[in-house]
Amino acid sequence: MVKIGIDMLGGDHAPQAVVDGLRLFFAQNPTAHVVGFGPEAECQEAITAAGLNNTQVSLVHAPELIGMHEHPTKALREKPNSSITIGFGALKQQKIDALISAGNTGCMLVGSMFFLKPLPGVSRPAIPTILPKLDGSTGLLLDVGLNADCKPENLNEFAWLGSQYAKKVLGINNPKVALLNIGEEEGKGNLLAQATYPLLKENTHINFIGNVEGRDVLTGQADVILCDGFTGNVILKMAESLFDIAKNQNLNNPYFNRFYFGQYGGVPVLGVEKPVIIGHGISNGEAFCKMLELAQQLCNSQFADFGIPY
Amino acid sequence: MVKIGIDMLGGDHAPQAVVDGLRLFFAQNPTAHVVGFGPEAECQEAITAAGLNNTQVSLVHAPELIGMHEHPTKALREKPNSSITIGFGALKQQKIDALISAGNTGCMLVGSMFFLKPLPGVSRPAIPTILPKLDGSTGLLLDVGLNADCKPENLNEFAWLGSQYAKKVLGINNPKVALLNIGEEEGKGNLLAQATYPLLKENTHINFIGNVEGRDVLTGQADVILCDGFTGNVILKMAESLFDIAKNQNLNNPYFNRFYFGQYGGVPVLGVEKPVIIGHGISNGEAFCKMLELAQQLCNSQFADFGIPY
Repeated sequence: MVKIGIDMLGGDHAPQAVVDGLRLFFAQNPTAHVVGFGPEAECQEAITAAGLNNTQVSLVHAPELIGMHEHPTKALREKPNSSITIGFGALKQQKIDALISAGNTGCMLVGSMFFLKPLPGVSRPAIPTILPKLDGSTGLLLDVGLNADCKPENLNEFAWLGSQYAKKVLGINNPKVALLNIGEEEGKGNLLAQATYPLLKENTHINFIGNVEGRDVLTGQADVILCDGFTGNVILKMAESLFDIAKNQNLNNPYFNRFYFGQYGGVPVLGVEKPVIIGHGISNGEAFCKMLELAQQLCNSQFADFGIPY
Repeated sequence: MVKIGIDMLGGDHAPQAVVDGLRLFFAQNPTAHVVGFGPEAECQEAITAAGLNNTQVSLVHAPELIGMHEHPTKALREKPNSSITIGFGALKQQKIDALISAGNTGCMLVGSMFFLKPLPGVSRPAIPTILPKLDGSTGLLLDVGLNADCKPENLNEFAWLGSQYAKKVLGINNPKVALLNIGEEEGKGNLLAQATYPLLKENTHINFIGNVEGRDVLTGQADVILCDGFTGNVILKMAESLFDIAKNQNLNNPYFNRFYFGQYGGVPVLGVEKPVIIGHGISNGEAFCKMLELAQQLCNSQFADFGIPY
């Protein structure tokens, strides 16, 4: 049986939001098993109060908290008893099959690379984001922050990772992959885009449809959009701000409501040997429940079992 | 008296939209003088039909049209009688004081660098865009496409160019300059952002307020946001798509309506010795009128008379 690990201290509303998520998750998956990392007494109390038992949620004592703004590498090194550090240790030792945290994002990223092996053929893991598209579908944009500077080969690897995720997890058949660029034609773009295009064009393992521009990110045909982590992070955060802007304008519009990223749960780290899911700090119970479901789906889809075939 | 040159063939609705713009402009500025570049007979007919006389608009015959998708360098070289080529020639020879075109953007950019000298201290000219901000103000983002790959010194120059434009043209006192980045603290970002931050921090000629993130582009405090032309172009086009998205959602919201870029007229090329204004292809008469007014303002503000003091 799949054992999902979860950081009980991660996120702005922990541990209550985590426990709320567990309650929602077990209502749908009564026979599942989750391992929680956090201060045992406090967490046990919250779990019992939520009507959950220890066959459902077993706890591993992890008394230290890594704050949202601590330096990732330093925090992981200096806080061996933190919920994130102990969680990654358990994942590495195969005591759990997946790890979820809405805590310090940098720590989750550094931890993924430090504790876990990359999949065969992956030189840099990446994190994608879902982008709500105007036609009701969702696009996948990656990388959104793990690799601020990228090489063409990195983007060519992201093409595979994003395609596999779109296919196996989002259920998109033959996902259309595009390169984010500042012109439609081949040869346009910065040095990275110019050098990446030919690699993607020659890549027979993906369904490359060419360049897309900024205007196509929310409206275009691509299922998977590739960019460096700097550009991707700027787009992600700009997209996030659209929800706040719509709210500020007193709009209750179904499309702009989809920019509330709290509702999506979390994003997976792609390209490492085990499923790791990073939640948004604002995650509520519903978001944690979605992350638990995603972790289960990632484990069952053997998503992380295969490397890059090129 | 200031002589503004305008490409009569530039834009999706030329020459009619250009002539509409001239009519609106002369209604407010009856004694101004504009030089139009285009096929003389056709343009003369449109100008006469609009009730304008040749003391107001004098024409220079330029029978060739550069299409919107032609290769810039090739088109400028192979079409010496195009309205853009002849316009730049007139600007270089000081027969006109400023040049406006809503035609092939690439040609306008290449032309600005080929025909004109950069201002002292400017290694790369840049183009900014206005970004409507939630508090009703407008931010300036640059570069949005002229320099897909930038060096730290380029961004440090853009800081001056953007500040001067914000001050002298947008009327913003002591404009707040920020670096677009993927984290708030110094040391964050890609190699470019990491290397640019210290230059900006030490620059006593600008009012540097630090990093801003994607979420701050439309909502934050910065008056001038600096980024490479790749990231800037992606943001600009994504911002443009917001108007279409709002329209698609049947929203008639004052804030999202401000993302209709046709209304802003055009953007100036910053860092060259003469005012050059590039209009959006979709420009209507109102937009052309605004470009003519902006050209007049740029000439009168001696905006392009000073180089970078560092």
